[in-house]
Amino acid sequence: MATFREISDTSPIRVACVGGGQLGRMMALEAPRLGIQMKFLDPGGVKCPAAQIVPSSSIIEGGLKDGDKIRELSKSVDVVTVEIEHVDVETLEALEKEGVNVQPSGQVLRTIQDKLVQKTHFQSHGIELPPFADTPSKDAIKQAAVTLGLPLMLKSRKGGYDGRGNAVLKTSEDADIEAALASLGCKDTSAPDLGVYAEGWIDFDCEVAVMVVRSANGSETSSYPAVNAIQQNSICRVVLAPARNVSLERREICERLAKKAIESLGAKASGVFGVELFVTNDGKVMLNEVAPRPHNTGHYTQDACVISQFENHLRGVCGMKLGSTKMVVEAAAMVNVLGAPSGTSEDTLKSSNAALAMPTAVVHWYGKQGCRAGRKMGHINLTGSSQAELDGCLSELFALEGIPVSLMPGGRLASSPLVGVIMGSQSDLPTMNAAIDMLKKFKVPYEVDIVSAHRTPDKLMSYSRGAADRGIRVIIAGAGGAAHLPGMVAAMTPLPVVGVPVKTSTLSGVDSLYSIVQMPRGVPVATVAIGNAMNAGLLAIRILSTHKAELRQEMKDYQDEMSEMVEGMSSKLLDLGSDEFLNQMDNKNKSVNV
Amino acid sequence: MATFREISDTSPIRVACVGGGQLGRMMALEAPRLGIQMKFLDPGGVKCPAAQIVPSSSIIEGGLKDGDKIRELSKSVDVVTVEIEHVDVETLEALEKEGVNVQPSGQVLRTIQDKLVQKTHFQSHGIELPPFADTPSKDAIKQAAVTLGLPLMLKSRKGGYDGRGNAVLKTSEDADIEAALASLGCKDTSAPDLGVYAEGWIDFDCEVAVMVVRSANGSETSSYPAVNAIQQNSICRVVLAPARNVSLERREICERLAKKAIESLGAKASGVFGVELFVTNDGKVMLNEVAPRPHNTGHYTQDACVISQFENHLRGVCGMKLGSTKMVVEAAAMVNVLGAPSGTSEDTLKSSNAALAMPTAVVHWYGKQGCRAGRKMGHINLTGSSQAELDGCLSELFALEGIPVSLMPGGRLASSPLVGVIMGSQSDLPTMNAAIDMLKKFKVPYEVDIVSAHRTPDKLMSYSRGAADRGIRVIIAGAGGAAHLPGMVAAMTPLPVVGVPVKTSTLSGVDSLYSIVQMPRGVPVATVAIGNAMNAGLLAIRILSTHKAELRQEMKDYQDEMSEMVEGMSSKLLDLGSDEFLNQMDNKNKSVNV
Repeated sequence: MATFREISDTSPIRVACVGGGQLGRMMALEAPRLGIQMKFLDPGGVKCPAAQIVPSSSIIEGGLKDGDKIRELSKSVDVVTVEIEHVDVETLEALEKEGVNVQPSGQVLRTIQDKLVQKTHFQSHGIELPPFADTPSKDAIKQAAVTLGLPLMLKSRKGGYDGRGNAVLKTSEDADIEAALASLGCKDTSAPDLGVYAEGWIDFDCEVAVMVVRSANGSETSSYPAVNAIQQNSICRVVLAPARNVSLERREICERLAKKAIESLGAKASGVFGVELFVTNDGKVMLNEVAPRPHNTGHYTQDACVISQFENHLRGVCGMKLGSTKMVVEAAAMVNVLGAPSGTSEDTLKSSNAALAMPTAVVHWYGKQGCRAGRKMGHINLTGSSQAELDGCLSELFALEGIPVSLMPGGRLASSPLVGVIMGSQSDLPTMNAAIDMLKKFKVPYEVDIVSAHRTPDKLMSYSRGAADRGIRVIIAGAGGAAHLPGMVAAMTPLPVVGVPVKTSTLSGVDSLYSIVQMPRGVPVATVAIGNAMNAGLLAIRILSTHKAELRQEMKDYQDEMSEMVEGMSSKLLDLGSDEFLNQMDNKNKSVNV
Repeated sequence: MATFREISDTSPIRVACVGGGQLGRMMALEAPRLGIQMKFLDPGGVKCPAAQIVPSSSIIEGGLKDGDKIRELSKSVDVVTVEIEHVDVETLEALEKEGVNVQPSGQVLRTIQDKLVQKTHFQSHGIELPPFADTPSKDAIKQAAVTLGLPLMLKSRKGGYDGRGNAVLKTSEDADIEAALASLGCKDTSAPDLGVYAEGWIDFDCEVAVMVVRSANGSETSSYPAVNAIQQNSICRVVLAPARNVSLERREICERLAKKAIESLGAKASGVFGVELFVTNDGKVMLNEVAPRPHNTGHYTQDACVISQFENHLRGVCGMKLGSTKMVVEAAAMVNVLGAPSGTSEDTLKSSNAALAMPTAVVHWYGKQGCRAGRKMGHINLTGSSQAELDGCLSELFALEGIPVSLMPGGRLASSPLVGVIMGSQSDLPTMNAAIDMLKKFKVPYEVDIVSAHRTPDKLMSYSRGAADRGIRVIIAGAGGAAHLPGMVAAMTPLPVVGVPVKTSTLSGVDSLYSIVQMPRGVPVATVAIGNAMNAGLLAIRILSTHKAELRQEMKDYQDEMSEMVEGMSSKLLDLGSDEFLNQMDNKNKSVNV
């Protein structure tokens, strides 16, 4: 059995981190709780974001590729780790030979640092990837245009991030190749090795990210849930957790592939790895890129998971037991705060200051020196008990940050219903409307549709199978006669299904009731009274309230109101006497004005 | 409309805090995200817990009652606040006169610092309190023993915390009074003012705490949920949020009283206030004490609420908009880590190191210099989607921390069922057992009881009204014939009720079905097929899974298993042909061995 490093006061764990930007800073904010002491090397010195969180003696000013400074940083620590992969790997490898504990190891960083080496490694370990080719020369690029087809992605092997180091090649004409290379910073296009490689064009449906975390001895590997990684101009703008519009099965495929990829890097691939994936239009999952450190797409874990990616990175590289990667909330989102077009921090802070008043938002401002248009200056996490609960704040933040809603999965926002109200025929709508009225009254987001078991069996299947992944939590289904809809839906979803037997002219709805309620063992339908869709709506609300104390309170208030209403009627009856009461009774509502 | 201070990079908010212990440290861990810069005054200087989180130049070494040091701390800051009330108030008041912004104000601290002044203030503002009397002399103590009765609590007016400064007086004999005064540190018992006061003895059912937060201009006041504050030897040991065994109504009374008390302190009562309350055996709510700062009973907010007490304290004292005090999880707990009896940090860290492996735990170690038996060295927060989910980890932590389970509300642990299975008569148990089997299979905690609408109407009422507050989330009720139980329960709870019509000999259960399903508008019962309690169990699980993705996945797996079982039967039928299949059929189970 592996032994894990523990928290100790007598010999506190000392971690040195190459880089003191926002990622290092957010590690430093988690470290003290575990008795971990951190040191940082950063070119910004005491002005770097991490420097605001540690004693001044724990900051070394220097470049991330300055071997001497890395050596200085590594003195008297237990572990050396990184917050960025673009560092001096040679020195880290030399230190390892001298007995310094580098996590993840220099070898792992070396593999990841050069994207061509990274791709080649993953390909040789059976990880699905977009096709790629080494293109050291212009001729090789032309050859790749033939074998991989056009358009082609040209990528710098080293140093790229946030879309920098990527260029799209539309034709294989010399002028286009020259232009693409120029945009990648290749000045001498006849150099013996251009330092670029080519990737085949992937028509992907969406980009997904998975944070994988491993303990230093490789004995534990776990992953956070797959999330939507929504990019704008090649920069991560929004993360939705768990991923919307991606089925649970596909999310699990993403998580398995991500773990397999990181495990292929060996026992010294420790700490957190940000794994970016493509889900293609035909449903395949492919690895895009890996970052050997906490990642922008994992920031939501700070407020949405038991243990954040930053704490788990520290636990992993220190050889401690990994913490739970589970979400404590049902839904989360992260919006990056980018430097405003004006480049001023006043303008940039507008979304964060607005978020201070949002009921589901947590503001993470990085305290970076020097605001610039487009620079990552902070992020805002949202958490809620359903996707629907986040959409209001998301929509405000999109407007403030200038993010088009069209980037959202499915291209829309504020459209995440919790309850699906369906019926076998439009003739059921007058009955079913009473359920909708209740959902409106309690402000529960819903959708309404016609799904006929007998006339639209394909829609029945796709609706039932897809509902949970779309964020639906309760389905209310109404049908009359040989009322198969509720039971068939229940057979194809794990969600609770409430069945409303619609009254029929031939058998007064007893046929509907029996069809809906007499389900076989294994597949339940929650059946309400004949024609009583109002109760179906109330039942859906009671179901949603099982994990939402406020909604439970609203239901209690509603019950108290009903009591008072009946008491009002009772007083009126006592006042008027039964004869006069009958006189005044409105026969339609069976009620008297109180 | 009040204007609120905002996050700014060009003029970051600078907060000076008197005291740099664990409370200051936990503020310092939240401040950077809001662009707030903190400074601390602490006798421990750079060795105090807060010093590990801020640049070294932000620490001033000095006593909390050292006026000169407080003056030094207050230079070039926007706000001066405190993490402890036992500070030099005179200097704070003088600084306020000179224009320094002290939040909460010296006047508020002065009122709270002297418990007799505090009690007198709250009494004059109509806040319910235990009876008390000023007892400047031994004679006054004897008089109080007559007016307030014995036993009597003698309390130091100033400086008490964690039970220090409290003594119980059982008789009014001179020797007992002398002993009590000695334990309170009164050396000269004939001094003109002993500095103590007396409180009448309160037989309380439990202690509850509410964190109240106010913005600096007094324009916003909100509260976190009422929690159980469980003490051992007068030190807070465990907090459960929301409070268990306290009804929602009573919790709301606690929250209202706490807010009213803090509002009575005026517009300069800003930031977080820890309000301790008694719920008496006869159901009354009384104020116990108030602390003008984040409080031990509010530590759970770090991992359980949208915005923690520490961030909200900073927001409050800085004049920023207050953040949401809502819980993001359904249940939380906090266990204090006290210095082990041996006084070594190795022994003390055992519970924290064990918690690193717990699925719901977050460890908060304070990094204090000098471990001592009984000293607060850290705390562990637990969060989950139900109280039941926490009880396993709580039980382990109780054992590790030497906390007797008898301190828990109701005196037990691991007893928080999510589903209540009830039936009108023991004769229904053979039917209802199929629901219990499903709950066992899916590892959902449940309880089983007999509740008869017609034979135990009082129990029906108390069961139905109390279920939600006890943590029950779904009720499964089975009954036969004039089956009133499910509907009557549904009338008295906001929870979803699943009704099982038990088969009858006279009408085959059609009587039960109609009694259960044909509920009037306003009160739904989720009805399943006659005698099909298995489906009732499965429906309860589907209901609970609406906010628990894992459970939803388990339900899908179960549905896949059912598919496979039927497919197995189908293969067998194809293999054997229908004649032989019928031959081999076990007539009891209507099935063939596959």
